[in-house]
Amino acid sequence: MTTIVAVDIGGTHMRAASYSQDDIKPIKYQRIRTLASEPGGFERLIDVIEAVLPQGEPVAGIGIGSPGPLDPHTGYLLAPPNNPQFHNFPLGEKLSKHFGAQTFLDNDANLAGLAEYRYGAGKEHSNVLYLTISTGVGGGVILADKLLQGHHGLAAELGHIIVDPNGPLCPCGFAGHLEAYSSGPAIAKYVLGELESGTKSVLKRDVNLSAKEIAEAAGQGDELAIKAYQRAGEYLGIGVATMLHSFDPSIVIFGGGVSQVGSLLFDSFHVSLKKRVFHPRYLEDLVITTAQLGDDAGLLGARALAEMKLGL
Amino acid sequence: MTTIVAVDIGGTHMRAASYSQDDIKPIKYQRIRTLASEPGGFERLIDVIEAVLPQGEPVAGIGIGSPGPLDPHTGYLLAPPNNPQFHNFPLGEKLSKHFGAQTFLDNDANLAGLAEYRYGAGKEHSNVLYLTISTGVGGGVILADKLLQGHHGLAAELGHIIVDPNGPLCPCGFAGHLEAYSSGPAIAKYVLGELESGTKSVLKRDVNLSAKEIAEAAGQGDELAIKAYQRAGEYLGIGVATMLHSFDPSIVIFGGGVSQVGSLLFDSFHVSLKKRVFHPRYLEDLVITTAQLGDDAGLLGARALAEMKLGL
Repeated sequence: MTTIVAVDIGGTHMRAASYSQDDIKPIKYQRIRTLASEPGGFERLIDVIEAVLPQGEPVAGIGIGSPGPLDPHTGYLLAPPNNPQFHNFPLGEKLSKHFGAQTFLDNDANLAGLAEYRYGAGKEHSNVLYLTISTGVGGGVILADKLLQGHHGLAAELGHIIVDPNGPLCPCGFAGHLEAYSSGPAIAKYVLGELESGTKSVLKRDVNLSAKEIAEAAGQGDELAIKAYQRAGEYLGIGVATMLHSFDPSIVIFGGGVSQVGSLLFDSFHVSLKKRVFHPRYLEDLVITTAQLGDDAGLLGARALAEMKLGL
Repeated sequence: MTTIVAVDIGGTHMRAASYSQDDIKPIKYQRIRTLASEPGGFERLIDVIEAVLPQGEPVAGIGIGSPGPLDPHTGYLLAPPNNPQFHNFPLGEKLSKHFGAQTFLDNDANLAGLAEYRYGAGKEHSNVLYLTISTGVGGGVILADKLLQGHHGLAAELGHIIVDPNGPLCPCGFAGHLEAYSSGPAIAKYVLGELESGTKSVLKRDVNLSAKEIAEAAGQGDELAIKAYQRAGEYLGIGVATMLHSFDPSIVIFGGGVSQVGSLLFDSFHVSLKKRVFHPRYLEDLVITTAQLGDDAGLLGARALAEMKLGL
């Protein structure tokens, strides 16, 4: 039996699972706190992996997902946010040495896209565009049945495509990125700016205002809240038009918390996309849908990466 | 000996060449006028191909390049500009039937990029971004040694990525595309608009004003002419930043007439690109250069397409 181990290093939890090749369900599963600010992060990672190792079975490969930036070609974590222990950290090599197995690393958005392609909403498709919209905006792209990684492993950073060169600053420090319009914090920032300018709303000026509270206010008919999501959807349509012209996928899959608000975001997205796509053939038989795998996407993507790289 | 036939259907000329697998130089080469407005286009195409067929040798495959839009998966020309005889025309199937050989079709920009990857500036690279800047702006992308085609065969339409949603109209009818800023006609249109607003220049208000004349005026120190190219370069940098974030290539190759003006366009391009790329790793060992193959790119790309699809 061929066993694959998958690892997902998240901001709050590290999770691991072992899989046999024929079953989507894990043989064993373990989850522990990441505790990024406490020393011993690598040792905790070893522990959570050891807890899922199959007894007496060799491991064919270990797939690992982590927030980027990272280098999938060398297995280095470069600067994962809020996890300074893993800055410039040769994670792939260290895990290979410890477990005597090949390791394969990529960022969480790429792997969620790969999981949806292999096991979820995209499994009938060869050209998949996955976008996660939550605290940030991330992308994962499969082209002709291959995960797009790029020369430095930094392809498909689709939250950082420029949708308006004179637009607001993205958390990354650069102007006019899609993430600066359509992420949860970007929606909240827009509302706070409008409140400051005197726009009336049931929402209060509170630096902790969340996209979820704004969605609730929109549900109660608050005009500013509705407009904030409409604007996010409009720019999302502009960004996705550029992505269709670049990648020409047969499916666009939306994941992440913000994408769960439904028509509040997607009505204006669809109008904007249709207005911006320059040739109707891009939209012929194009499927636009939401992710199917939820929290499992990271682990399943890490597993899929290892399987694909091993040719399984 | 394995013989490949390559065909390039241009606006003014149709060209064909036959190649043996080991030599970059053609065995035979033929060029005739396209005469798009005169009937008999398909027959002329047959003639130019027959003129290069090797005597007594079987043809392994025929590669064909044409302006798009077209469908590389079905071999249909959809709506090549200025060539109404070939609208919704099953070119691949018809040539297959006539010559008894497999045919492979793609658009001219994709094939020029493929040629540069296989025989030109990009031959040491696996992830290539090719941009042609002339009457329009076109793209060709090779990722992990595969030509990016997309689900409908419409990927890498990089002249039509949106660089400013409120920008000027592109000839395709949509707002703010890269082509609407950085193509030759876009540079001329900007100059004409400024002249109309009273900006002083040695250039005259003439609807036939060309990018070449503007480059000459810039060479003589004309401020408006210099500014027009600077602006084209600035938006080119914005567009290429989005492309790096999307594709993460190891080389960017510029072809087409406008790209031959050198620093007039590329000084502001480099400044803009550096200002817009959101992580310095994209630029690490990134090669930015000009195309090497000139007029031969179309034919060599058609040849490379046939060879790659045949696994040669």
